[in-house]
Amino acid sequence: MTTSYRLSEIAARLGGRVLGDAGVRISQVATLEAAQPDQISFLTNSKYRAQLADTRAGALILAEADADVSGLPRIVSDNPYAYFARVSALLNPLPEVKPGIHPGAVIGAGASIDATASIAATAVIGDGAKIGAHSVIGEGCCIGANTVIGSHARLYPRVVVYHGCVIGDNLIAHSGAVIGSDGFGIAMDAGRWIKIPQIGRVVIGNDVEIGANTTIDRGALSDTVIEDGVKMDNQIQIAHNVHIGAHTAIAGCVGIAGSTTIGKYCRIGGSAGILGHLQIADHVEIAAFTLIGKSIREAGSYAGIFPFSRAEDWRKNSVHLRHLDELAGRVKALEKQLESISDESLKKQ
Amino acid sequence: MTTSYRLSEIAARLGGRVLGDAGVRISQVATLEAAQPDQISFLTNSKYRAQLADTRAGALILAEADADVSGLPRIVSDNPYAYFARVSALLNPLPEVKPGIHPGAVIGAGASIDATASIAATAVIGDGAKIGAHSVIGEGCCIGANTVIGSHARLYPRVVVYHGCVIGDNLIAHSGAVIGSDGFGIAMDAGRWIKIPQIGRVVIGNDVEIGANTTIDRGALSDTVIEDGVKMDNQIQIAHNVHIGAHTAIAGCVGIAGSTTIGKYCRIGGSAGILGHLQIADHVEIAAFTLIGKSIREAGSYAGIFPFSRAEDWRKNSVHLRHLDELAGRVKALEKQLESISDESLKKQ
Amino acid sequence: MTTSYRLSEIAARLGGRVLGDAGVRISQVATLEAAQPDQISFLTNSKYRAQLADTRAGALILAEADADVSGLPRIVSDNPYAYFARVSALLNPLPEVKPGIHPGAVIGAGASIDATASIAATAVIGDGAKIGAHSVIGEGCCIGANTVIGSHARLYPRVVVYHGCVIGDNLIAHSGAVIGSDGFGIAMDAGRWIKIPQIGRVVIGNDVEIGANTTIDRGALSDTVIEDGVKMDNQIQIAHNVHIGAHTAIAGCVGIAGSTTIGKYCRIGGSAGILGHLQIADHVEIAAFTLIGKSIREAGSYAGIFPFSRAEDWRKNSVHLRHLDELAGRVKALEKQLESISDESLKKQ
Repeated sequence: MTTSYRLSEIAARLGGRVLGDAGVRISQVATLEAAQPDQISFLTNSKYRAQLADTRAGALILAEADADVSGLPRIVSDNPYAYFARVSALLNPLPEVKPGIHPGAVIGAGASIDATASIAATAVIGDGAKIGAHSVIGEGCCIGANTVIGSHARLYPRVVVYHGCVIGDNLIAHSGAVIGSDGFGIAMDAGRWIKIPQIGRVVIGNDVEIGANTTIDRGALSDTVIEDGVKMDNQIQIAHNVHIGAHTAIAGCVGIAGSTTIGKYCRIGGSAGILGHLQIADHVEIAAFTLIGKSIREAGSYAGIFPFSRAEDWRKNSVHLRHLDELAGRVKALEKQLESISDESLKKQ
Repeated sequence: MTTSYRLSEIAARLGGRVLGDAGVRISQVATLEAAQPDQISFLTNSKYRAQLADTRAGALILAEADADVSGLPRIVSDNPYAYFARVSALLNPLPEVKPGIHPGAVIGAGASIDATASIAATAVIGDGAKIGAHSVIGEGCCIGANTVIGSHARLYPRVVVYHGCVIGDNLIAHSGAVIGSDGFGIAMDAGRWIKIPQIGRVVIGNDVEIGANTTIDRGALSDTVIEDGVKMDNQIQIAHNVHIGAHTAIAGCVGIAGSTTIGKYCRIGGSAGILGHLQIADHVEIAAFTLIGKSIREAGSYAGIFPFSRAEDWRKNSVHLRHLDELAGRVKALEKQLESISDESLKKQ
Repeated sequence: MTTSYRLSEIAARLGGRVLGDAGVRISQVATLEAAQPDQISFLTNSKYRAQLADTRAGALILAEADADVSGLPRIVSDNPYAYFARVSALLNPLPEVKPGIHPGAVIGAGASIDATASIAATAVIGDGAKIGAHSVIGEGCCIGANTVIGSHARLYPRVVVYHGCVIGDNLIAHSGAVIGSDGFGIAMDAGRWIKIPQIGRVVIGNDVEIGANTTIDRGALSDTVIEDGVKMDNQIQIAHNVHIGAHTAIAGCVGIAGSTTIGKYCRIGGSAGILGHLQIADHVEIAAFTLIGKSIREAGSYAGIFPFSRAEDWRKNSVHLRHLDELAGRVKALEKQLESISDESLKKQ
């Protein structure tokens, strides 16, 4: 059942320069440590060259600069990590899914499902929803009324997309993701919260991936927008009217508050947070566990993490944080005192 | 299909004073920037008055203080934001749901479902559960045995309520919410964790909203309690035996540890945390990303956020946090030295 | 319907020394404050002895050191908290589940389901999956193709396990948990992210508990591994290739980044985070809200929490964090100045 390719066949499909025995058969990708003779591994950083010595891999993917550090059959590529990703996709195609609607699925009135799409058992497609060509809607997914999903989407079991959302092609959404739930909009009136109807949509571009149990709220008045190529890990929370620029990557557990706009090609570390109504420029990198409380106008790396230490040291040090202003004041006072002493010394001299 | 109302009809239903042409027809709410001539917008803060100049809105909702800043048809209200919420609810009624039990739902023995309630396809209602009048149980929801849900509840697809919970009227629960799962109770015994059965319930009052993928654990011995009017955003974690006071609002990704009691009318910012067994007073406001590690006895605003900066500045500055106690000691030493120098100077004089 | 046991019967089953009336009938466990005469309570910390005075409990569980602090019927145990857990399990057995496959479940080709297992309505078992003896698969659960689940598992409604995972005996998984979703693996290539196929599995040992809406990603190349006895609370995110040692307990909302290895018997506080590719030793305790950014080689307690205060104090103090390096520099300058003054003073003397 396993596919295998000669090194020459891989290069013919994916490019790259073959060195050594181009006839070696490769059936899987693996790490340098774990690779077997029928497997291909890769080196993305020259500083790990030493690990090549012990590998049992049958072939390697190497950067131009490392082309000659091994005598194993190898493919030389400009971008070995991306090349490895392509080889892995070649060797590990997604399991084929039978097109058609499972009899245990529930299809709403006026829903339009492409003949090449697959709707699994217990999935529910709402009235007037559209599912594009070759898209796979997994078990227990619910697609809301009038929502449109493009082609080649893959929704794993139990994804919910609320009504009226618009999603491009090639979406990957993992189990438990919720797209289009109400934003958190409430108004206080005479001691009670009144709900503000959330009448915007979620609009998602092409080539977006959404992790397990990630939530993306619909807009309050206008839309929440996720541009092309955005990649999101698990358990991310995107509030209403957030706009995320193309090709931005967001690690797990990040929370982004309402109406914030994030640029293109940003990278946001795990468990970071971004407050609402902010602007984040393109190419901004935010460290894990950092709260962004003001707009960022310039590309670059930003961080704000409290460093950990042994608990007893943390206790001793952190107590001063509540008196930092006083401490700074005392340093200032010392500087003044010393200055006046020096002045006096000068006068005396 | 769109509803529309004359300004006079809106005021007749919702109160407020009409100025200008009361006959203008309004079919939707919108922001000042996006509003069209058949839409109504609002101004909640006088400092944004300048934005009124360019709006194409057909009408406005204004505070008494701003009553005359525009010549557009307008409704003057004590609380323009709440008024806007009511207008939006009027113009955007929830889609009507057909009462009755979908043949693809699974209903347990002895379950009692009001004739006006709606149970969607693939929903499962446990033995002895009760669903109140006009409540809507969405696709894939599971209601545990003997759980009671009041009237006018709206459970979006894939909400789970475990057995034996009690929920009041007007609940809104978004997809992926889990209510009544076991609290995290374990006891270490001879090198192994033993599970402590979680025999309490979750008891929820009236008018509560629960966001997507939020989790509320059942009590260990007594109950977890959510009082009337509590509003919770997405991905919040409420541990066992937490008690949340009425009308408290909690933003996304907040975690509240076991047995903590939170007062009424609190506001908790996104990704904040509250440790277990604490007491938080009424009217406490907690900033985003803040960990509350001690009880708060007085109303007010509390915060504890590490400020972000450029990564290189953060690195330079944060290294000192591990030596803050030493730094404070050095300042103290300097003060003593200076004092003794001053003393000597005095003696010399 | 309630079970009850005499104190003597409890001790006969669970051990411990009975003092006082061994014939008292006990039907439930409760806190000291809430306990009724037919209920048993417990004291795990001698400093709460005063609370014994007012309890209406019919019996107590006490440590050897507290054996004589009450005249109530009592069981004396080495570990009263674990003993209480066992009594509670005795008095609160899980509801019996009827073995068999509900007609509303969907079973894949070649799936193997033990005759004593129970598969609920709307559950979906993938092709070639195996479900062990006495395991209960709740409503709306999806078990992927070729996944193996051991005996006595209990999956609450809407748990998803992707294809090809391996899970031991006695798993408890709460609603919304997702096991085996793709890790977050992407490679940048010419301005676009390419997906790296996630071909590893999730491998879970025996006696593991997984909280509601917790996510555990499958490995990228090799497996994500959860060893025996690991206990996880709600909304935890475990990234690809993480390895968690036996009997480690993790509180809610924790995020663990890719390829990190955590030792045995660790305890990780709520909302803590651990960066990727780190090693955490056995018996490490991590405080809530702490980010671990470097490997920890020694057992012990670690923390890194920014202390909260009134918002105005926080504002005043935290502003100095952006100038901490400068402040430290000024202290150093002061020390030098003072030293040179002292040197001069010495010369003068």
